[in-house]
Amino acid sequence: MALELLSTTKCFEGEQRVYKHHSNTLGCDMTFGVYLPPAVIEDKTQCPVLYFLSGLTCTHENFVQKSGFQETAAKHGLIVVNPDTSPRGVELPGQDDAYDFGSGAGFYVDATEEPWSKHYKMYSYVTQELADVVNANFSTLPGKQGIFGHSMGGHGALICALKNPGLYQSVSAFAPIANPSECPWGKKAFTGYLGADTSSWEQWDATYLASKYVGPPQELFIDQGSADNFLVVKQLLPEKLLAAAAPNDHIQTIFKQRDGYDHSYFYISTFVAEHIAYHAKLLKA
Amino acid sequence: MALELLSTTKCFEGEQRVYKHHSNTLGCDMTFGVYLPPAVIEDKTQCPVLYFLSGLTCTHENFVQKSGFQETAAKHGLIVVNPDTSPRGVELPGQDDAYDFGSGAGFYVDATEEPWSKHYKMYSYVTQELADVVNANFSTLPGKQGIFGHSMGGHGALICALKNPGLYQSVSAFAPIANPSECPWGKKAFTGYLGADTSSWEQWDATYLASKYVGPPQELFIDQGSADNFLVVKQLLPEKLLAAAAPNDHIQTIFKQRDGYDHSYFYISTFVAEHIAYHAKLLKA
Repeated sequence: MALELLSTTKCFEGEQRVYKHHSNTLGCDMTFGVYLPPAVIEDKTQCPVLYFLSGLTCTHENFVQKSGFQETAAKHGLIVVNPDTSPRGVELPGQDDAYDFGSGAGFYVDATEEPWSKHYKMYSYVTQELADVVNANFSTLPGKQGIFGHSMGGHGALICALKNPGLYQSVSAFAPIANPSECPWGKKAFTGYLGADTSSWEQWDATYLASKYVGPPQELFIDQGSADNFLVVKQLLPEKLLAAAAPNDHIQTIFKQRDGYDHSYFYISTFVAEHIAYHAKLLKA
Repeated sequence: MALELLSTTKCFEGEQRVYKHHSNTLGCDMTFGVYLPPAVIEDKTQCPVLYFLSGLTCTHENFVQKSGFQETAAKHGLIVVNPDTSPRGVELPGQDDAYDFGSGAGFYVDATEEPWSKHYKMYSYVTQELADVVNANFSTLPGKQGIFGHSMGGHGALICALKNPGLYQSVSAFAPIANPSECPWGKKAFTGYLGADTSSWEQWDATYLASKYVGPPQELFIDQGSADNFLVVKQLLPEKLLAAAAPNDHIQTIFKQRDGYDHSYFYISTFVAEHIAYHAKLLKA
């Protein structure tokens, strides 16, 4: 679990760092961002950790550079970790043929289909190996972790939480791909990673998982811009998730529609402070 | 002065736009960013305009995407305009040979040397043509404009203000190239754009201009990270500017050193809210 520090930059009195490490789960080297708030830098305070999962085509860089999350993470004393979106450098045939499958598009599932199943295990990477690495190397507060994400990463945050009752104390998503089994992006990805048998997709679909979830009460904060072009073309389908969750007493949803906002980082930057405050409230309760 | 709208994106209840137009001064098409705060979008309120000049290698995109300035501009009701850093598409020989001269490195001077003098007039573009375009197309408050910038753009902001007493009511700079005649970046750029006769450089050097400035009292807010690697290798030389300005009763300097901060956008993002609040206070006085 040796970490290689690629960069560290002071930001809002804390430090934005980028690390590289070898992932045994993925069978390749991976980079990830870690923001350490001033409470960690100055006093080695144990702080909750909040994971952010990015969307299609992203690396760890996009959220770090464009969202402006560091200001609010500093204020609330959260460690924020954001991984890459797929295995890298594994050289599978076809991995770079499309923006929405393969490199940059791991969809946070554990692939079962060849050749992807050897490396594309982003679900296990995020929920287990990366968390172990983070907890072993940074002053995280035990048992206090949240997860959020954007688009494909919003889907990832939802399934990581719904498949692991009680593992994350706070969950939110910006414009998630909420019902991948029923949208073009999800159908393509799940066919490739999980196979053509759609029954195998259910366990990786937030809408199905929300309907079946049993466990400690889980609140899901879903955020969606009304002018999001991917909402219009039915790639996101938040209404399916909300409808599936409604009858389930174990799930509580908060849905905020943002009038006139699109799918971009300008949208994320506008509301990231609200999300981080939401996570902080639950993680520091 | 026809403007072509390339994009508009809602951000902090205002709109981040990107425009293209033909610049007669530069003899080419140019893009620039404009953030319109909610007061402009909702009520067509006349607002002060604040120009941001970017550093080496940047386009209009860097500041727009990485600084997070929009939150504070929205709060204070400032229109923020940020141009590109050089003429584009003019195809001068050697323009793309180096990161610190030619494309992306106009240094906000009016070149006198061939072949640059035909196009490289970023000083006149920023202080005159772009301002005319902005005032003709957006609800700017007449006579209320400020200017700031980063590195090469901090130098640009300082000379635009010092060469035009009273034109800008507020001026600040992040890690400016404060004495270009005496640093490697500046010597290379000034030799290329202005010629080998260093006496012609004085009128484009903020340190010289600050020593000679006569006009309405001008305050200069200079910001500098202590861990800035370009400070260490003497590309920035803020101490020269401060020393030159000190005896000049027409200039007041505010110097803030930021312990441990570097030259990056993580540094800018940490302090941009303070700068915008500073400009707003002066522009709304």
